[in-house]
Amino acid sequence: MYNYKKPAKPWGDQMIKVSVLGATGYTGQELVRLLYQHAEVKIVGLGTQNYVGQSFANVYPHFRGIIDIVCRSVDDEYLFDEADVVFLALPHGLSVPYVVKAINNGKKVVDLGADFRLKNQEVYEHWYKKTAPPADILAQAIYGLPEINRTIINNAVLLSNPGCYPTTAILGLAPLLHNKLVDIKDIIIDSKSGISGAGRSLSLGSMFSEAGNNFKAYGFPHHRHTPEIEQEISAIAGQEIKVSFTPHLLPMIRGMLSTIYIRPSAGTQYKHVLEAYETMYKKEPFVRVMPTGEFPNTKWVLGTNFCDIGLSWDERAEKIIIVSAIDNLVKGASGQAVQNMNIMFGLEESTGLKHIAVYP
Amino acid sequence: MYNYKKPAKPWGDQMIKVSVLGATGYTGQELVRLLYQHAEVKIVGLGTQNYVGQSFANVYPHFRGIIDIVCRSVDDEYLFDEADVVFLALPHGLSVPYVVKAINNGKKVVDLGADFRLKNQEVYEHWYKKTAPPADILAQAIYGLPEINRTIINNAVLLSNPGCYPTTAILGLAPLLHNKLVDIKDIIIDSKSGISGAGRSLSLGSMFSEAGNNFKAYGFPHHRHTPEIEQEISAIAGQEIKVSFTPHLLPMIRGMLSTIYIRPSAGTQYKHVLEAYETMYKKEPFVRVMPTGEFPNTKWVLGTNFCDIGLSWDERAEKIIIVSAIDNLVKGASGQAVQNMNIMFGLEESTGLKHIAVYP
Amino acid sequence: MYNYKKPAKPWGDQMIKVSVLGATGYTGQELVRLLYQHAEVKIVGLGTQNYVGQSFANVYPHFRGIIDIVCRSVDDEYLFDEADVVFLALPHGLSVPYVVKAINNGKKVVDLGADFRLKNQEVYEHWYKKTAPPADILAQAIYGLPEINRTIINNAVLLSNPGCYPTTAILGLAPLLHNKLVDIKDIIIDSKSGISGAGRSLSLGSMFSEAGNNFKAYGFPHHRHTPEIEQEISAIAGQEIKVSFTPHLLPMIRGMLSTIYIRPSAGTQYKHVLEAYETMYKKEPFVRVMPTGEFPNTKWVLGTNFCDIGLSWDERAEKIIIVSAIDNLVKGASGQAVQNMNIMFGLEESTGLKHIAVYP
Amino acid sequence: MYNYKKPAKPWGDQMIKVSVLGATGYTGQELVRLLYQHAEVKIVGLGTQNYVGQSFANVYPHFRGIIDIVCRSVDDEYLFDEADVVFLALPHGLSVPYVVKAINNGKKVVDLGADFRLKNQEVYEHWYKKTAPPADILAQAIYGLPEINRTIINNAVLLSNPGCYPTTAILGLAPLLHNKLVDIKDIIIDSKSGISGAGRSLSLGSMFSEAGNNFKAYGFPHHRHTPEIEQEISAIAGQEIKVSFTPHLLPMIRGMLSTIYIRPSAGTQYKHVLEAYETMYKKEPFVRVMPTGEFPNTKWVLGTNFCDIGLSWDERAEKIIIVSAIDNLVKGASGQAVQNMNIMFGLEESTGLKHIAVYP
Repeated sequence: MYNYKKPAKPWGDQMIKVSVLGATGYTGQELVRLLYQHAEVKIVGLGTQNYVGQSFANVYPHFRGIIDIVCRSVDDEYLFDEADVVFLALPHGLSVPYVVKAINNGKKVVDLGADFRLKNQEVYEHWYKKTAPPADILAQAIYGLPEINRTIINNAVLLSNPGCYPTTAILGLAPLLHNKLVDIKDIIIDSKSGISGAGRSLSLGSMFSEAGNNFKAYGFPHHRHTPEIEQEISAIAGQEIKVSFTPHLLPMIRGMLSTIYIRPSAGTQYKHVLEAYETMYKKEPFVRVMPTGEFPNTKWVLGTNFCDIGLSWDERAEKIIIVSAIDNLVKGASGQAVQNMNIMFGLEESTGLKHIAVYP
Repeated sequence: MYNYKKPAKPWGDQMIKVSVLGATGYTGQELVRLLYQHAEVKIVGLGTQNYVGQSFANVYPHFRGIIDIVCRSVDDEYLFDEADVVFLALPHGLSVPYVVKAINNGKKVVDLGADFRLKNQEVYEHWYKKTAPPADILAQAIYGLPEINRTIINNAVLLSNPGCYPTTAILGLAPLLHNKLVDIKDIIIDSKSGISGAGRSLSLGSMFSEAGNNFKAYGFPHHRHTPEIEQEISAIAGQEIKVSFTPHLLPMIRGMLSTIYIRPSAGTQYKHVLEAYETMYKKEPFVRVMPTGEFPNTKWVLGTNFCDIGLSWDERAEKIIIVSAIDNLVKGASGQAVQNMNIMFGLEESTGLKHIAVYP
Repeated sequence: MYNYKKPAKPWGDQMIKVSVLGATGYTGQELVRLLYQHAEVKIVGLGTQNYVGQSFANVYPHFRGIIDIVCRSVDDEYLFDEADVVFLALPHGLSVPYVVKAINNGKKVVDLGADFRLKNQEVYEHWYKKTAPPADILAQAIYGLPEINRTIINNAVLLSNPGCYPTTAILGLAPLLHNKLVDIKDIIIDSKSGISGAGRSLSLGSMFSEAGNNFKAYGFPHHRHTPEIEQEISAIAGQEIKVSFTPHLLPMIRGMLSTIYIRPSAGTQYKHVLEAYETMYKKEPFVRVMPTGEFPNTKWVLGTNFCDIGLSWDERAEKIIIVSAIDNLVKGASGQAVQNMNIMFGLEESTGLKHIAVYP
Repeated sequence: MYNYKKPAKPWGDQMIKVSVLGATGYTGQELVRLLYQHAEVKIVGLGTQNYVGQSFANVYPHFRGIIDIVCRSVDDEYLFDEADVVFLALPHGLSVPYVVKAINNGKKVVDLGADFRLKNQEVYEHWYKKTAPPADILAQAIYGLPEINRTIINNAVLLSNPGCYPTTAILGLAPLLHNKLVDIKDIIIDSKSGISGAGRSLSLGSMFSEAGNNFKAYGFPHHRHTPEIEQEISAIAGQEIKVSFTPHLLPMIRGMLSTIYIRPSAGTQYKHVLEAYETMYKKEPFVRVMPTGEFPNTKWVLGTNFCDIGLSWDERAEKIIIVSAIDNLVKGASGQAVQNMNIMFGLEESTGLKHIAVYP
């Protein structure tokens, strides 16, 4: 099925033409923000389910005076014909036909949904209660967490963009697991997310009067990001791992922070831990390991593609505690998608992603 | 030293006369709200360090038209002479002389500070970096968490009111530990608090522009509430327990929620867990165990003395997950202090504490 | 049509039996909070459109352990048969049949909706785009702002509870207009409201991610509260007044504040202004006029039935500036409804309404 | 005194070297964000009063991995020697000596403080209770609101950057006053600001627990921005105008919105109003006039240099209502300062200022 042909001219000499399907959701409009400001990208079209024929800047007036594009149907062939790469920011379970269409047209795809994240069809169907994608297409999908597997992203045609919670968990745990510094049992991942992660669909729980001035845990112990985390960290560790993952909802719009508890292996010292993070992340453009004694604030990464990581050693309780923070809509979704696109097209990885947090 | 004499007339036939030292801090003014509305209490005086001679309603204008009291110095003898019970809502480390004065005057004391919470002087000095209270006074102090030890609160003269984080942790863990349903190793307590817990003192971290729209972990792995939690749950379990405790700061004013992870003992089934909570808390006026599948929202307890508890069994990861929520200034401080006073004076325990959350 | 019979026993010797229709909306559940805590009231039933047959404490879990009532249909006769007074907290335009049924059953009604606020049918139909209530029923409706017209509330059978914005505007302006201290032209009412005023219905604008971290004006210059304000202040002034009224939406749940600009009449001095407010409000239990130089904070009235008023004289621009603040769900809705009920049943007016703001 | 020499090479061929004094305040660090991302600018140094010798990225960790500069004293000569232009983001009243030093060194200055905004020394001293700057220096200061007076900004050596409230008021009123469409009496400016406008200095009113979940008016009727607004709109109108200006504090960090009420002149029709805004602003890169019936949301301009303006005609009350919104730290401070710098150095005016709001 795969028939993608790398263009004769190396990317970088010409603009990458992109279209976004699902542009009027929160991750979709965030993609538009990032792609519009990207020096090597030209947005050729925006697809939507609910706002066909409307000006994008009417749906999101913060784009007034900046972007003048009328939204098309997600089924509009134009979005596939004119683009070099199609971004899918659709609700879970809808991606397959668009992926097929894009690949058959020789286009690349970056899918921000969950449909291609789980490599095992049975696991997908168990957790998502939907039919898994066909095996031949699923086999082409590359899970795209650049800090972990950028070498295989390079040639991806179908890129499956990680979930937000898994991004914090995997980046937080990778140096420990890769270096076998910890006991893989009893890993606890206690995560907290801003409300924008629930998307723009109307729901009582997302109302200001309900979510405001409130904090709660939700969706556990069977949140769908659990198998995604386990799949990826098991691959890093080289053995099957089960985690306890509990998400919570913060009374703020953007921002995600995971606090991870794990027992050090016998013989592991704190200096080994520090070295592991230093070694793995020192050249990463988007991972910032905090100095000992300092811990991430979600607002330090707001609007940026950074993942900030803080480390602590609780010698009394024999635990390593890792705190990792991202903007759930950037490194947790659209920013990471652009980072993956940069790799797929041979661009410098941080192109278009050098935002500084708007503070305070 | 102890010379408290129970009044000839049983309490309940007359108003309890109270004074509050440290009335102009957040927990102090919350005490004033609760005590003012308490049918069996008369506030005889308010002591302050910084607002001596000012009208209390000037310091806190939400009391205008309600309370007309001029603040006295915390050293004013009147506050000890006129009261049956003295509430101390002072910064940590200042309580001893006031406790001595009150007890010598034959008065009861409810201390909302930390000075008398730790029974071991060395532990106190290690964690608080202050001189511990003299052993003879410390020996008189009763740690007052009514759901756990109300029988000894009854006769307390010096009542040490629990910390906010420990209240969530101990109430969350007690049924499991009391019934020996869990492994006491690897207990993780991941707590999140509103900012009012930091008090009214000026600090950069408590500024709206810094704490707003933000989430972070802080003060771990050596937060001072750790030994208090360990002391109390070790007593319940009958063996020494160490926990990993990590507090976080929420972008909201009031509300506290702890997510607690613990491994079930071999043989423990979820029904045993449910029974343990049902049995221990079914008659408690202030503990509400949620139905299976539901979890606390901090705003359901806002302004109230409730502790809401939700339970989950993560069979994949072999963990019991307990979520407990309180209002940090009520059940976590001033409301619990009033509950303790009610017990100490023979009143029905929920007198003056039947608030319903102001929702949404 | 009127056939209400005052009970043989004066109220106060027995509990007032109440039912609430629309109990599962925000103003409805706030009524339940206030009525449940009211010493002279017994709630006999709760009516709802969407949650028939469900436990009220399931819909609003902050009532768990407090209220154990199963919601009935708003059309359930029981709600009319068993109650002495029926509270209507329904969407606008639905009240008439329930009012008719209640009155025909000899019951009193407190309607928190807008249907009976405007005395002129044409004005109602112009602003609300709905058919006005029949003239004979409308004629029975008493607009219930106790500080202005409590003498006629006394005998009301059908009490029309004021809107939230009008409450701030009328209480803010009454002393000036009553004493003819101001020019009635060019009155500007710039109002700001928390989001709970929009109710519990799902809408994009009420989502946390949209309303949070945002501020905007809306619904002007033709907001429906305009004719209500004009009707009432014209009556006070004895001449027809038109105002410019602009509402705004605050990123918070509860709280409302109006800033009112008005030109003093020739000869008016600031001391006359102060005297006017002092005279009109000094005995009012729920109006607090701030000392000169101080201005209301919405959180000082949160959860309470207070209306706080601050005054300023801008001699440079020749304007009197009045700032009035309420909790939109209490003095702006449910608290005022209870205040009106107290008057209608001969109770002390502040019964059940002596809440102190939960601060900070 | 003036001895600024335009460099031989036209700006644009080389990087503009800038230093920022007061870089560790909120407007200072926002300047750093904008200047760092500016393609034609090189930051040569950062001056601070309180963090001398500390890494800037330590003071503001969201700059970690981005900026590696150690803060200097504001008195460090290096900041004046190495820069082409010095930005002053100091507390009010401190600018004069730094302005003198910079100008004497042949450097340009952009002062974000208030010291040079008022052209009349007596007016300054009356409102600010400080000694006004010397007349000869004051005479050189150019008030820099580009949309109003960009032609004279061109050659400015000492640029006085407007206040945040005045920016909203002047841009909101200019088309009406310039075209003489309105009565200049009875102008009401009701403004609402996020809390970051109060800066980073510790104060009780800026604490999260005090400012959060709250709304209030403050500082009127004598707020210091009043004479600045009057000075500038009087110049536009060609006659002396007095306004009534009332600021309020919103429970959010960034964002400012002013609602302005003004009476149309006899003969003015709404189409004249629309034409006036269209004509004045259609080519402006940073002013967006909303379509009729739509009004600004502060979050649409968050982090950007836009001023969004909405218009309404209240024919019943004979008022034009203008709503203007900015980010107080961008168009209200640091963004406008960069816009002014761009003009002063002959760059395209929007260089480095093409941010899109981070939404939602």
